[in-house]
Amino acid sequence: MRILFSALLAAALAVPALAQAPKPLTPGAILAAAPAADWQAVDPNDLLVLEFGPARRVVIQLAATFAPVHVANIRALARARYYDGLMIERVQDDYVTQLGDPSGKRPLPSGVVQPAPAEYERALEGLRLDVLPYRDTYAGLVGFSAGWPVASSGDRAWMTHCYGMVGVGRDLNPDTGTGAELYAVIGHAPRALDRNIALVGRVLEGMEFLAALPRGPGEQGFYEDPRMRVPIVRARIAADMPAATRPEFELLKTASPSYQAWWKLKANRQDDFFLRPAGAVDICNALPPLRKGRH
Amino acid sequence: MRILFSALLAAALAVPALAQAPKPLTPGAILAAAPAADWQAVDPNDLLVLEFGPARRVVIQLAATFAPVHVANIRALARARYYDGLMIERVQDDYVTQLGDPSGKRPLPSGVVQPAPAEYERALEGLRLDVLPYRDTYAGLVGFSAGWPVASSGDRAWMTHCYGMVGVGRDLNPDTGTGAELYAVIGHAPRALDRNIALVGRVLEGMEFLAALPRGPGEQGFYEDPRMRVPIVRARIAADMPAATRPEFELLKTASPSYQAWWKLKANRQDDFFLRPAGAVDICNALPPLRKGRH
Repeated sequence: MRILFSALLAAALAVPALAQAPKPLTPGAILAAAPAADWQAVDPNDLLVLEFGPARRVVIQLAATFAPVHVANIRALARARYYDGLMIERVQDDYVTQLGDPSGKRPLPSGVVQPAPAEYERALEGLRLDVLPYRDTYAGLVGFSAGWPVASSGDRAWMTHCYGMVGVGRDLNPDTGTGAELYAVIGHAPRALDRNIALVGRVLEGMEFLAALPRGPGEQGFYEDPRMRVPIVRARIAADMPAATRPEFELLKTASPSYQAWWKLKANRQDDFFLRPAGAVDICNALPPLRKGRH
Repeated sequence: MRILFSALLAAALAVPALAQAPKPLTPGAILAAAPAADWQAVDPNDLLVLEFGPARRVVIQLAATFAPVHVANIRALARARYYDGLMIERVQDDYVTQLGDPSGKRPLPSGVVQPAPAEYERALEGLRLDVLPYRDTYAGLVGFSAGWPVASSGDRAWMTHCYGMVGVGRDLNPDTGTGAELYAVIGHAPRALDRNIALVGRVLEGMEFLAALPRGPGEQGFYEDPRMRVPIVRARIAADMPAATRPEFELLKTASPSYQAWWKLKANRQDDFFLRPAGAVDICNALPPLRKGRH
Protein backbone atom coordinates (compact mmCIF):
# COMPACT_ATOMS: atom_id res chain seq x y z
CA MET A 1 0.00 0.00 0.00
CA ARG A 2 2.88 2.34 0.77
CA ILE A 3 4.10 2.11 -2.80
CA LEU A 4 0.69 2.86 -4.24
CA PHE A 5 -0.33 5.72 -2.04
CA SER A 6 2.98 7.50 -2.08
CA ALA A 7 3.05 7.48 -5.86
CA LEU A 8 -0.49 8.81 -6.10
CA LEU A 9 0.23 11.40 -3.46
CA ALA A 10 3.34 12.54 -5.32
CA ALA A 11 1.32 12.90 -8.51
CA ALA A 12 -1.39 14.85 -6.74
CA LEU A 13 1.11 17.21 -5.11
CA ALA A 14 3.22 17.71 -8.21
CA VAL A 15 4.05 21.41 -8.57
CA PRO A 16 5.25 23.33 -11.63
CA ALA A 17 8.74 23.47 -10.15
CA LEU A 18 9.03 19.77 -10.92
CA ALA A 19 10.17 19.20 -14.48
CA GLN A 20 7.90 16.16 -14.72
CA ALA A 21 5.43 14.57 -12.31
CA PRO A 22 6.21 10.93 -11.52
CA LYS A 23 4.37 8.55 -13.80
CA PRO A 24 1.40 6.84 -12.14
CA LEU A 25 2.15 3.32 -10.98
CA THR A 26 1.04 0.33 -13.03
CA PRO A 27 -0.20 -3.00 -11.65
CA GLY A 28 2.79 -4.66 -13.32
CA ALA A 29 5.20 -2.41 -11.44
CA ILE A 30 3.65 -3.45 -8.13
CA LEU A 31 4.18 -7.10 -8.99
CA ALA A 32 7.76 -6.49 -10.09
CA ALA A 33 8.49 -4.81 -6.76
CA ALA A 34 6.70 -7.38 -4.56
CA PRO A 35 9.13 -8.89 -2.03
CA ALA A 36 9.65 -12.66 -1.80
CA ALA A 37 7.63 -12.79 1.43
CA ASP A 38 4.52 -11.69 -0.47
CA TRP A 39 4.59 -14.77 -2.74
CA GLN A 40 3.48 -18.27 -1.83
CA ALA A 41 4.74 -21.38 -3.62
CA VAL A 42 1.98 -23.73 -4.82
CA ASP A 43 2.24 -27.23 -3.30
CA PRO A 44 3.23 -29.64 -6.12
CA ASN A 45 0.72 -32.13 -4.72
CA ASP A 46 -1.96 -29.57 -5.68
CA LEU A 47 -0.89 -29.29 -9.34
CA LEU A 48 -2.49 -31.44 -12.04
CA VAL A 49 -0.35 -31.34 -15.19
CA LEU A 50 -2.07 -32.23 -18.48
CA GLU A 51 0.10 -32.67 -21.57
CA PHE A 52 -1.58 -32.41 -24.95
CA GLY A 53 1.53 -32.65 -27.09
CA PRO A 54 4.42 -30.31 -27.78
CA ALA A 55 4.06 -26.90 -26.16
CA ARG A 56 0.47 -27.60 -25.20
CA ARG A 57 0.51 -28.10 -21.47
CA VAL A 58 -2.24 -27.22 -19.01
CA VAL A 59 -1.49 -26.90 -15.30
CA ILE A 60 -4.39 -26.80 -12.86
CA GLN A 61 -4.07 -25.86 -9.20
CA LEU A 62 -6.41 -28.04 -7.12
CA ALA A 63 -8.54 -26.57 -4.32
CA ALA A 64 -8.49 -29.10 -1.52
CA THR A 65 -9.81 -26.45 0.89
CA PHE A 66 -13.14 -26.38 -0.94
CA ALA A 67 -13.51 -29.79 -2.58
CA PRO A 68 -11.35 -32.29 -0.67
CA VAL A 69 -13.11 -35.44 -1.89
CA HIS A 70 -13.08 -34.34 -5.53
CA VAL A 71 -9.44 -33.32 -5.26
CA ALA A 72 -8.52 -36.69 -3.72
CA ASN A 73 -10.40 -38.32 -6.60
CA ILE A 74 -8.49 -36.27 -9.17
CA ARG A 75 -5.17 -37.21 -7.62
CA ALA A 76 -6.22 -40.90 -7.63
CA LEU A 77 -7.40 -40.66 -11.26
CA ALA A 78 -4.12 -39.07 -12.36
CA ARG A 79 -2.04 -41.63 -10.45
CA ALA A 80 -4.02 -44.51 -11.99
CA ARG A 81 -3.34 -42.99 -15.46
CA TYR A 82 -7.09 -42.62 -15.96
CA TYR A 83 -6.80 -39.27 -17.73
CA ASP A 84 -4.15 -40.47 -20.22
CA GLY A 85 -5.94 -40.74 -23.55
CA LEU A 86 -9.05 -38.82 -22.46
CA MET A 87 -10.21 -36.13 -24.85
CA ILE A 88 -11.20 -32.52 -24.97
CA GLU A 89 -14.65 -33.15 -26.38
CA ARG A 90 -16.56 -29.92 -25.88
CA VAL A 91 -15.76 -26.24 -26.47
CA GLN A 92 -18.71 -23.87 -26.14
CA ASP A 93 -18.07 -20.23 -26.93
CA ASP A 94 -18.22 -17.81 -23.98
CA TYR A 95 -18.70 -20.78 -21.65
CA VAL A 96 -16.48 -23.85 -21.17
CA THR A 97 -13.87 -26.22 -22.58
CA GLN A 98 -14.52 -29.73 -21.26
CA LEU A 99 -12.59 -32.99 -21.22
CA GLY A 100 -13.87 -36.48 -20.62
CA ASP A 101 -14.24 -39.97 -22.01
CA PRO A 102 -16.32 -39.75 -25.20
CA SER A 103 -17.04 -43.48 -25.03
CA GLY A 104 -18.29 -43.20 -21.45
CA LYS A 105 -16.98 -46.72 -20.90
CA ARG A 106 -13.64 -46.31 -19.22
CA PRO A 107 -13.91 -47.89 -15.76
CA LEU A 108 -13.00 -45.72 -12.81
CA PRO A 109 -10.02 -46.98 -10.81
CA SER A 110 -10.37 -48.06 -7.22
CA GLY A 111 -9.95 -45.35 -4.63
CA VAL A 112 -12.32 -43.00 -6.48
CA VAL A 113 -15.36 -42.03 -4.44
CA GLN A 114 -18.39 -42.33 -6.68
CA PRO A 115 -20.51 -40.31 -6.54
CA ALA A 116 -18.49 -37.70 -4.71
CA PRO A 117 -20.45 -35.56 -2.25
CA ALA A 118 -21.58 -32.27 -3.73
CA GLU A 119 -18.92 -30.02 -2.13
CA TYR A 120 -20.59 -27.03 -3.79
CA GLU A 121 -20.18 -24.85 -0.71
CA ARG A 122 -18.88 -24.98 2.85
CA ALA A 123 -19.04 -23.07 6.12
CA LEU A 124 -17.40 -19.65 6.10
CA GLU A 125 -16.20 -20.39 9.60
CA GLY A 126 -12.61 -21.52 9.61
CA LEU A 127 -11.71 -19.60 6.44
CA ARG A 128 -9.57 -16.51 6.37
CA LEU A 129 -11.24 -14.23 3.81
CA ASP A 130 -9.48 -11.18 2.36
CA VAL A 131 -12.57 -9.17 1.44
CA LEU A 132 -12.94 -7.03 -1.68
CA PRO A 133 -14.93 -4.00 -0.48
CA TYR A 134 -17.07 -3.72 -3.61
CA ARG A 135 -20.60 -4.72 -4.51
CA ASP A 136 -21.04 -8.09 -6.16
CA THR A 137 -24.05 -8.89 -8.35
CA TYR A 138 -24.49 -12.40 -6.97
CA ALA A 139 -23.39 -12.48 -3.32
CA GLY A 140 -23.36 -10.33 -0.23
CA LEU A 141 -19.61 -10.62 0.18
CA VAL A 142 -16.68 -11.59 -2.04
CA GLY A 143 -12.98 -11.97 -1.47
CA PHE A 144 -10.12 -14.43 -1.53
CA SER A 145 -9.27 -17.34 0.73
CA ALA A 146 -6.00 -19.24 0.35
CA GLY A 147 -5.78 -17.70 -3.11
CA TRP A 148 -9.27 -18.79 -4.20
CA PRO A 149 -12.06 -16.44 -5.30
CA VAL A 150 -14.85 -16.86 -2.79
CA ALA A 151 -18.38 -15.54 -2.34
CA SER A 152 -20.29 -15.73 0.90
CA SER A 153 -23.75 -15.21 2.26
CA GLY A 154 -22.36 -14.66 5.74
CA ASP A 155 -22.48 -18.24 6.99
CA ARG A 156 -21.80 -20.25 3.84
CA ALA A 157 -18.94 -19.76 1.39
CA TRP A 158 -18.24 -21.05 -2.11
CA MET A 159 -15.82 -20.57 -4.95
CA THR A 160 -16.91 -18.45 -7.90
CA HIS A 161 -17.01 -19.38 -11.60
CA CYS A 162 -14.37 -16.99 -12.95
CA TYR A 163 -12.49 -17.20 -16.26
CA GLY A 164 -9.94 -19.99 -15.85
CA MET A 165 -11.66 -21.76 -12.96
CA VAL A 166 -12.06 -25.53 -13.26
CA GLY A 167 -15.11 -27.57 -12.31
CA VAL A 168 -16.30 -31.16 -12.39
CA GLY A 169 -18.82 -32.24 -15.00
CA ARG A 170 -21.80 -34.17 -13.73
CA ASP A 171 -25.14 -35.56 -14.89
CA LEU A 172 -28.44 -33.87 -14.21
CA ASN A 173 -28.70 -35.37 -10.76
CA PRO A 174 -26.52 -33.71 -8.13
CA ASP A 175 -23.72 -35.75 -6.56
CA THR A 176 -23.01 -37.54 -9.84
CA GLY A 177 -19.61 -35.98 -10.49
CA THR A 178 -16.37 -37.75 -9.68
CA GLY A 179 -13.56 -35.70 -11.21
CA ALA A 180 -13.35 -37.88 -14.33
CA GLU A 181 -14.73 -35.01 -16.43
CA LEU A 182 -13.35 -31.52 -15.97
CA TYR A 183 -14.27 -28.19 -17.53
CA ALA A 184 -12.54 -24.81 -17.59
CA VAL A 185 -14.40 -21.50 -17.91
CA ILE A 186 -13.40 -19.70 -21.13
CA GLY A 187 -15.84 -16.77 -21.17
CA HIS A 188 -17.55 -14.18 -19.05
CA ALA A 189 -17.97 -15.63 -15.56
CA PRO A 190 -21.07 -17.92 -15.56
CA ARG A 191 -21.76 -17.19 -11.91
CA ALA A 192 -25.21 -18.80 -12.06
CA LEU A 193 -23.30 -22.10 -11.87
CA ASP A 194 -21.92 -21.19 -8.42
CA ARG A 195 -23.20 -23.62 -5.78
CA ASN A 196 -24.69 -25.83 -8.48
CA ILE A 197 -21.60 -27.75 -9.44
CA ALA A 198 -18.25 -28.50 -7.80
CA LEU A 199 -15.38 -26.16 -8.57
CA VAL A 200 -12.06 -27.87 -7.96
CA GLY A 201 -9.33 -25.55 -9.17
CA ARG A 202 -7.87 -22.92 -11.44
CA VAL A 203 -5.84 -23.09 -14.63
CA LEU A 204 -2.42 -21.57 -13.88
CA GLU A 205 -0.94 -22.36 -17.29
CA GLY A 206 -2.47 -23.13 -20.68
CA MET A 207 -5.59 -20.95 -20.84
CA GLU A 208 -4.36 -19.55 -24.14
CA PHE A 209 -4.58 -23.13 -25.45
CA LEU A 210 -7.91 -24.15 -23.84
CA ALA A 211 -9.65 -20.89 -24.80
CA ALA A 212 -8.45 -20.84 -28.41
CA LEU A 213 -9.71 -24.28 -29.44
CA PRO A 214 -12.31 -24.39 -32.22
CA ARG A 215 -15.82 -24.11 -30.87
CA GLY A 216 -17.87 -27.26 -31.35
CA PRO A 217 -20.61 -26.88 -33.96
CA GLY A 218 -23.45 -28.31 -31.87
CA GLU A 219 -25.72 -26.57 -29.37
CA GLN A 220 -23.49 -27.16 -26.37
CA GLY A 221 -20.23 -27.14 -28.30
CA PHE A 222 -19.64 -30.90 -28.32
CA TYR A 223 -17.15 -32.22 -30.86
CA GLU A 224 -19.35 -34.81 -32.51
CA ASP A 225 -16.71 -35.29 -35.20
CA PRO A 226 -14.08 -37.39 -33.37
CA ARG A 227 -11.33 -35.80 -35.46
CA MET A 228 -11.89 -32.50 -33.63
CA ARG A 229 -11.16 -34.08 -30.24
CA VAL A 230 -7.81 -33.35 -28.61
CA PRO A 231 -6.30 -36.23 -26.62
CA ILE A 232 -4.48 -35.92 -23.32
CA VAL A 233 -1.11 -37.54 -23.88
CA ARG A 234 -0.22 -37.70 -20.21
CA ALA A 235 -1.65 -36.41 -16.93
CA ARG A 236 0.38 -36.32 -13.73
CA ILE A 237 0.41 -34.75 -10.30
CA ALA A 238 3.43 -32.41 -10.26
CA ALA A 239 4.75 -33.94 -7.04
CA ASP A 240 5.18 -37.23 -8.91
CA MET A 241 7.21 -35.68 -11.75
CA PRO A 242 11.00 -35.39 -11.90
CA ALA A 243 12.16 -32.04 -10.54
CA ALA A 244 13.60 -31.08 -13.94
CA THR A 245 10.23 -31.12 -15.73
CA ARG A 246 7.91 -30.31 -12.84
CA PRO A 247 6.13 -26.97 -13.25
CA GLU A 248 6.45 -24.56 -10.35
CA PHE A 249 4.28 -21.56 -9.55
CA GLU A 250 4.01 -18.88 -6.96
CA LEU A 251 0.84 -16.93 -6.20
CA LEU A 252 0.76 -13.47 -4.68
CA LYS A 253 -0.68 -13.85 -1.16
CA THR A 254 -3.93 -11.93 -0.99
CA ALA A 255 -3.15 -10.86 2.58
CA SER A 256 0.14 -9.28 1.48
CA PRO A 257 0.71 -5.52 1.15
CA SER A 258 1.60 -6.05 -2.52
CA TYR A 259 -1.72 -7.71 -3.35
CA GLN A 260 -3.65 -5.08 -1.41
CA ALA A 261 -1.88 -2.34 -3.38
CA TRP A 262 -2.40 -4.26 -6.63
CA TRP A 263 -6.18 -4.65 -6.39
CA LYS A 264 -6.62 -1.06 -5.20
CA LEU A 265 -4.73 0.05 -8.28
CA LYS A 266 -6.73 -2.32 -10.52
CA ALA A 267 -9.82 -0.50 -9.21
CA ASN A 268 -8.26 2.94 -9.63
CA ARG A 269 -6.05 2.94 -12.71
CA GLN A 270 -4.38 6.27 -13.43
CA ASP A 271 -1.74 4.98 -15.82
CA ASP A 272 -1.73 4.61 -19.59
CA PHE A 273 -4.97 5.78 -21.14
CA PHE A 274 -7.17 5.60 -18.06
CA LEU A 275 -8.98 8.90 -17.73
CA ARG A 276 -11.65 7.82 -15.32
CA PRO A 277 -10.79 5.14 -12.74
CA ALA A 278 -13.52 2.52 -12.34
CA GLY A 279 -13.62 2.86 -8.55
CA ALA A 280 -14.17 -0.89 -8.17
CA VAL A 281 -12.94 -4.22 -9.45
CA ASP A 282 -14.90 -7.40 -10.09
CA ILE A 283 -13.69 -10.48 -8.21
CA CYS A 284 -13.04 -12.22 -11.53
CA ASN A 285 -10.74 -9.40 -12.63
CA ALA A 286 -8.74 -9.61 -9.40
CA LEU A 287 -7.60 -13.25 -9.16
CA PRO A 288 -4.21 -13.42 -7.43
CA PRO A 289 -1.36 -12.81 -9.87
CA LEU A 290 1.06 -15.67 -10.37
CA ARG A 291 4.56 -16.21 -11.62
CA LYS A 292 6.36 -19.28 -12.86
CA GLY A 293 9.33 -20.91 -11.19
CA ARG A 294 10.87 -20.40 -7.78
CA HIS A 295 12.37 -17.03 -6.95
CA MET B 1 -43.81 -13.06 -17.63
CA ARG B 2 -47.03 -15.00 -17.79
CA ILE B 3 -45.26 -17.97 -19.28
CA LEU B 4 -42.58 -17.96 -16.62
CA PHE B 5 -44.66 -17.43 -13.56
CA SER B 6 -47.42 -19.84 -14.43
CA ALA B 7 -44.90 -22.60 -15.05
CA LEU B 8 -43.19 -21.98 -11.74
CA LEU B 9 -46.51 -21.79 -9.97
CA ALA B 10 -47.60 -25.04 -11.52
CA ALA B 11 -44.40 -26.70 -10.36
CA ALA B 12 -44.80 -25.31 -6.85
CA LEU B 13 -48.40 -26.46 -6.61
CA ALA B 14 -47.84 -29.88 -8.10
CA VAL B 15 -49.71 -32.49 -6.06
CA PRO B 16 -49.26 -36.26 -5.96
CA ALA B 17 -52.42 -36.69 -8.01
CA LEU B 18 -50.50 -35.34 -10.99
CA ALA B 19 -48.59 -38.10 -12.71
CA GLN B 20 -45.74 -35.69 -13.41
CA ALA B 21 -45.16 -32.05 -12.53
CA PRO B 22 -44.54 -29.85 -15.58
CA LYS B 23 -40.86 -29.46 -16.33
CA PRO B 24 -39.47 -26.05 -15.36
CA LEU B 25 -39.17 -23.67 -18.28
CA THR B 26 -35.82 -23.08 -19.97
CA PRO B 27 -34.57 -19.77 -21.38
CA GLY B 28 -34.52 -21.40 -24.81
CA ALA B 29 -38.20 -22.29 -24.55
CA ILE B 30 -39.06 -18.65 -23.84
CA LEU B 31 -37.20 -17.56 -26.97
CA ALA B 32 -38.87 -20.23 -29.08
CA ALA B 33 -42.28 -19.02 -27.91
CA ALA B 34 -41.58 -15.27 -28.30
CA PRO B 35 -44.09 -13.70 -30.72
CA ALA B 36 -42.91 -11.75 -33.77
CA ALA B 37 -43.82 -8.45 -32.09
CA ASP B 38 -41.15 -9.07 -29.43
CA TRP B 39 -38.36 -9.12 -32.02
CA GLN B 40 -36.78 -6.09 -33.71
CA ALA B 41 -34.97 -6.31 -37.04
CA VAL B 42 -31.51 -4.73 -37.04
CA ASP B 43 -31.16 -1.88 -39.57
CA PRO B 44 -28.81 -3.08 -42.36
CA ASN B 45 -27.17 0.36 -42.29
CA ASP B 46 -26.03 -0.54 -38.74
CA LEU B 47 -24.32 -3.80 -39.74
CA LEU B 48 -20.61 -3.93 -40.57
CA VAL B 49 -19.81 -7.20 -42.35
CA LEU B 50 -16.18 -8.38 -42.27
CA GLU B 51 -15.22 -11.33 -44.46
CA PHE B 52 -12.02 -13.19 -43.55
CA GLY B 53 -12.33 -15.97 -46.09
CA PRO B 54 -14.59 -19.01 -46.45
CA ALA B 55 -16.97 -19.47 -43.51
CA ARG B 56 -15.17 -16.84 -41.48
CA ARG B 57 -17.47 -13.86 -41.38
CA VAL B 58 -17.88 -11.35 -38.58
CA VAL B 59 -20.98 -9.15 -38.37
CA ILE B 60 -20.92 -6.18 -36.01
CA GLN B 61 -23.99 -4.15 -35.07
CA LEU B 62 -23.06 -0.45 -34.82
CA ALA B 63 -24.31 1.72 -31.96
CA ALA B 64 -25.14 5.08 -33.48
CA THR B 65 -27.11 6.01 -30.36
CA PHE B 66 -23.92 6.08 -28.29
CA ALA B 67 -21.11 6.87 -30.73
CA PRO B 68 -22.61 8.65 -33.76
CA VAL B 69 -19.37 10.19 -35.04
CA HIS B 70 -17.41 6.96 -34.71
CA VAL B 71 -20.21 5.02 -36.40
CA ALA B 72 -20.34 7.54 -39.27
CA ASN B 73 -16.57 7.13 -39.55
CA ILE B 74 -16.86 3.33 -39.67
CA ARG B 75 -19.48 3.51 -42.40
CA ALA B 76 -17.25 5.91 -44.38
CA LEU B 77 -14.21 3.68 -43.88
CA ALA B 78 -16.11 0.60 -45.07
CA ARG B 79 -17.52 2.45 -48.08
CA ALA B 80 -14.05 3.71 -49.05
CA ARG B 81 -12.79 0.08 -48.86
CA TYR B 82 -10.38 1.17 -46.14
CA TYR B 83 -10.81 -2.04 -44.10
CA ASP B 84 -10.19 -4.35 -47.09
CA GLY B 85 -6.76 -5.85 -46.49
CA LEU B 86 -6.47 -4.74 -42.88
CA MET B 87 -5.33 -7.39 -40.44
CA ILE B 88 -6.21 -8.97 -37.16
CA GLU B 89 -2.93 -8.17 -35.48
CA ARG B 90 -3.52 -8.69 -31.77
CA VAL B 91 -5.20 -11.43 -29.71
CA GLN B 92 -4.68 -11.16 -25.96
CA ASP B 93 -6.12 -13.96 -23.85
CA ASP B 94 -9.06 -13.02 -21.59
CA TYR B 95 -9.06 -9.54 -23.12
CA VAL B 96 -9.38 -8.53 -26.79
CA THR B 97 -8.96 -9.43 -30.46
CA GLN B 98 -7.94 -6.32 -32.42
CA LEU B 99 -7.70 -5.39 -36.09
CA GLY B 100 -5.84 -2.55 -37.70
CA ASP B 101 -3.16 -1.54 -40.15
CA PRO B 102 0.13 -3.09 -39.00
CA SER B 103 2.07 -0.66 -41.21
CA GLY B 104 0.29 2.33 -39.72
CA LYS B 105 0.67 4.05 -43.08
CA ARG B 106 -2.65 3.60 -44.83
CA PRO B 107 -4.13 7.08 -45.34
CA LEU B 108 -7.61 7.69 -44.00
CA PRO B 109 -10.20 8.49 -46.65
CA SER B 110 -11.94 11.84 -46.74
CA GLY B 111 -15.09 12.11 -44.71
CA VAL B 112 -13.48 10.53 -41.65
CA VAL B 113 -13.45 12.82 -38.62
CA GLN B 114 -9.99 12.67 -37.08
CA PRO B 115 -9.70 12.65 -34.18
CA ALA B 116 -13.27 11.69 -33.40
CA PRO B 117 -14.70 13.18 -30.20
CA ALA B 118 -14.44 10.85 -27.23
CA GLU B 119 -18.09 9.65 -27.18
CA TYR B 120 -17.26 7.59 -24.10
CA GLU B 121 -20.52 8.50 -22.39
CA ARG B 122 -23.63 10.60 -22.90
CA ALA B 123 -26.58 12.02 -20.98
CA LEU B 124 -29.03 9.48 -19.59
CA GLU B 125 -31.80 11.90 -20.50
CA GLY B 126 -33.44 10.93 -23.73
CA LEU B 127 -32.67 7.23 -23.35
CA ARG B 128 -35.25 4.60 -22.54
CA LEU B 129 -33.52 2.25 -20.11
CA ASP B 130 -34.91 -1.19 -19.25
CA VAL B 131 -33.30 -1.59 -15.84
CA LEU B 132 -31.92 -4.83 -14.43
CA PRO B 133 -32.86 -4.71 -10.74
CA TYR B 134 -29.59 -6.21 -9.49
CA ARG B 135 -26.44 -4.79 -7.96
CA ASP B 136 -23.59 -4.00 -10.31
CA THR B 137 -19.98 -3.86 -9.16
CA TYR B 138 -19.12 -0.79 -11.23
CA ALA B 139 -22.20 1.41 -11.56
CA GLY B 140 -25.25 2.50 -9.61
CA LEU B 141 -27.63 1.32 -12.31
CA VAL B 142 -27.47 -1.04 -15.27
CA GLY B 143 -29.90 -2.04 -17.97
CA PHE B 144 -30.50 -2.00 -21.69
CA SER B 145 -31.26 0.79 -24.09
CA ALA B 146 -32.14 0.12 -27.72
CA GLY B 147 -30.61 -3.32 -27.19
CA TRP B 148 -27.32 -2.01 -25.78
CA PRO B 149 -25.93 -2.86 -22.33
CA VAL B 150 -25.77 0.42 -20.45
CA ALA B 151 -24.54 1.57 -17.05
CA SER B 152 -25.50 4.86 -15.48
CA SER B 153 -24.56 7.08 -12.58
CA GLY B 154 -27.99 8.71 -12.67
CA ASP B 155 -27.21 11.59 -15.03
CA ARG B 156 -24.62 10.07 -17.36
CA ALA B 157 -24.90 6.78 -19.25
CA TRP B 158 -22.38 4.60 -21.10
CA MET B 159 -22.14 1.23 -22.77
CA THR B 160 -20.40 -1.57 -20.88
CA HIS B 161 -17.45 -3.71 -21.96
CA CYS B 162 -19.15 -7.11 -22.16
CA TYR B 163 -17.97 -10.22 -24.01
CA GLY B 164 -18.54 -9.56 -27.72
CA MET B 165 -18.70 -5.78 -27.46
CA VAL B 166 -16.63 -3.81 -29.98
CA GLY B 167 -14.56 -0.69 -29.29
CA VAL B 168 -12.24 1.66 -31.12
CA GLY B 169 -8.49 1.44 -30.53
CA ARG B 170 -6.75 4.70 -29.78
CA ASP B 171 -3.36 6.04 -28.70
CA LEU B 172 -2.58 7.07 -25.15
CA ASN B 173 -4.11 10.51 -25.61
CA PRO B 174 -7.90 10.58 -25.54
CA ASP B 175 -9.75 11.57 -28.69
CA THR B 176 -7.18 9.84 -30.90
CA GLY B 177 -9.45 7.06 -32.15
CA THR B 178 -11.17 7.19 -35.52
CA GLY B 179 -12.70 3.75 -36.11
CA ALA B 180 -9.78 2.57 -38.24
CA GLU B 181 -8.79 0.10 -35.49
CA LEU B 182 -11.43 -2.02 -33.82
CA TYR B 183 -11.28 -4.54 -30.97
CA ALA B 184 -13.74 -7.13 -29.68
CA VAL B 185 -13.84 -8.30 -26.06
CA ILE B 186 -13.03 -12.05 -25.84
CA GLY B 187 -12.83 -12.57 -22.08
CA HIS B 188 -14.36 -11.66 -18.76
CA ALA B 189 -15.83 -8.16 -19.09
CA PRO B 190 -12.99 -5.60 -18.66
CA ARG B 191 -15.35 -3.05 -17.20
CA ALA B 192 -12.48 -0.80 -16.06
CA LEU B 193 -12.33 0.27 -19.73
CA ASP B 194 -15.87 1.69 -19.54
CA ARG B 195 -15.84 5.46 -20.11
CA ASN B 196 -12.16 5.33 -21.06
CA ILE B 197 -12.54 4.32 -24.68
CA ALA B 198 -15.32 4.44 -27.27
CA LEU B 199 -17.52 1.39 -27.59
CA VAL B 200 -19.20 1.30 -30.98
CA GLY B 201 -21.02 -2.00 -31.30
CA ARG B 202 -21.49 -5.69 -30.65
CA VAL B 203 -20.49 -8.79 -32.57
CA LEU B 204 -23.70 -10.55 -33.67
CA GLU B 205 -21.93 -13.25 -35.69
CA GLY B 206 -18.40 -14.63 -35.66
CA MET B 207 -17.37 -14.55 -31.99
CA GLU B 208 -16.49 -18.25 -32.23
CA PHE B 209 -13.91 -17.19 -34.86
CA LEU B 210 -12.57 -14.04 -33.14
CA ALA B 211 -12.31 -15.71 -29.72
CA ALA B 212 -10.61 -18.88 -30.95
CA LEU B 213 -7.66 -17.26 -32.74
CA PRO B 214 -4.19 -18.09 -31.44
CA ARG B 215 -3.12 -15.74 -28.68
CA GLY B 216 -0.18 -13.52 -29.68
CA PRO B 217 3.02 -14.44 -27.90
CA GLY B 218 3.94 -10.94 -26.75
CA GLU B 219 2.86 -9.04 -23.62
CA GLN B 220 -0.25 -7.51 -25.17
CA GLY B 221 -0.90 -10.35 -27.59
CA PHE B 222 0.39 -8.60 -30.73
CA TYR B 223 1.19 -10.85 -33.69
CA GLU B 224 4.74 -9.72 -34.30
CA ASP B 225 5.19 -12.55 -36.79
CA PRO B 226 3.29 -11.24 -39.84
CA ARG B 227 2.35 -14.82 -40.81
CA MET B 228 0.02 -14.98 -37.81
CA ARG B 229 -2.01 -11.99 -39.00
CA VAL B 230 -5.44 -12.64 -40.52
CA PRO B 231 -6.43 -10.34 -43.38
CA ILE B 232 -9.87 -8.89 -43.95
CA VAL B 233 -10.81 -9.89 -47.47
CA ARG B 234 -13.75 -7.53 -47.71
CA ALA B 235 -15.67 -5.21 -45.39
CA ARG B 236 -19.07 -3.81 -46.26
CA ILE B 237 -22.09 -2.18 -44.70
CA ALA B 238 -24.92 -4.71 -45.03
CA ALA B 239 -27.23 -2.11 -46.62
CA ASP B 240 -24.79 -1.91 -49.56
CA MET B 241 -24.76 -5.67 -50.15
CA PRO B 242 -27.04 -7.60 -52.51
CA ALA B 243 -30.11 -8.90 -50.68
CA ALA B 244 -29.09 -12.49 -51.38
CA THR B 245 -25.86 -12.31 -49.38
CA ARG B 246 -26.77 -9.62 -46.87
CA PRO B 247 -26.89 -10.93 -43.28
CA GLU B 248 -30.08 -10.25 -41.36
CA PHE B 249 -30.62 -10.33 -37.63
CA GLU B 250 -33.38 -9.74 -35.15
CA LEU B 251 -32.83 -8.84 -31.50
CA LEU B 252 -35.29 -9.55 -28.73
CA LYS B 253 -36.65 -6.17 -27.59
CA THR B 254 -35.65 -5.64 -23.96
CA ALA B 255 -38.99 -3.96 -23.27
CA SER B 256 -40.91 -7.03 -24.46
CA PRO B 257 -42.65 -9.51 -22.15
CA SER B 258 -40.49 -12.29 -23.62
CA TYR B 259 -37.23 -10.55 -22.71
CA GLN B 260 -38.52 -9.72 -19.23
CA ALA B 261 -39.43 -13.38 -18.70
CA TRP B 262 -36.09 -14.48 -20.16
CA TRP B 263 -33.84 -12.46 -17.86
CA LYS B 264 -35.90 -13.32 -14.80
CA LEU B 265 -35.44 -16.97 -15.67
CA LYS B 266 -31.71 -16.46 -16.33
CA ALA B 267 -31.55 -15.14 -12.76
CA ASN B 268 -33.69 -17.95 -11.37
CA ARG B 269 -32.94 -21.14 -13.26
CA GLN B 270 -34.87 -24.17 -12.05
CA ASP B 271 -34.29 -26.36 -15.08
CA ASP B 272 -31.57 -28.90 -15.84
CA PHE B 273 -29.14 -29.24 -13.01
CA PHE B 274 -29.82 -25.94 -11.26
CA LEU B 275 -30.39 -26.68 -7.60
CA ARG B 276 -29.96 -23.19 -6.27
CA PRO B 277 -31.04 -20.28 -8.47
CA ALA B 278 -28.54 -17.43 -8.48
CA GLY B 279 -31.17 -14.80 -7.67
CA ALA B 280 -29.47 -12.30 -9.98
CA VAL B 281 -27.90 -11.98 -13.39
CA ASP B 282 -24.91 -9.91 -14.46
CA ILE B 283 -25.57 -7.43 -17.27
CA CYS B 284 -22.97 -9.19 -19.41
CA ASN B 285 -24.83 -12.49 -19.04
CA ALA B 286 -28.11 -10.90 -20.13
CA LEU B 287 -27.38 -9.30 -23.53
CA PRO B 288 -30.50 -9.43 -25.70
CA PRO B 289 -30.82 -12.76 -27.50
CA LEU B 290 -30.69 -12.65 -31.27
CA ARG B 291 -31.71 -14.78 -34.18
CA LYS B 292 -30.62 -14.83 -37.80
CA GLY B 293 -32.79 -14.04 -40.78
CA ARG B 294 -36.24 -12.53 -41.00
CA HIS B 295 -39.17 -14.35 -39.44
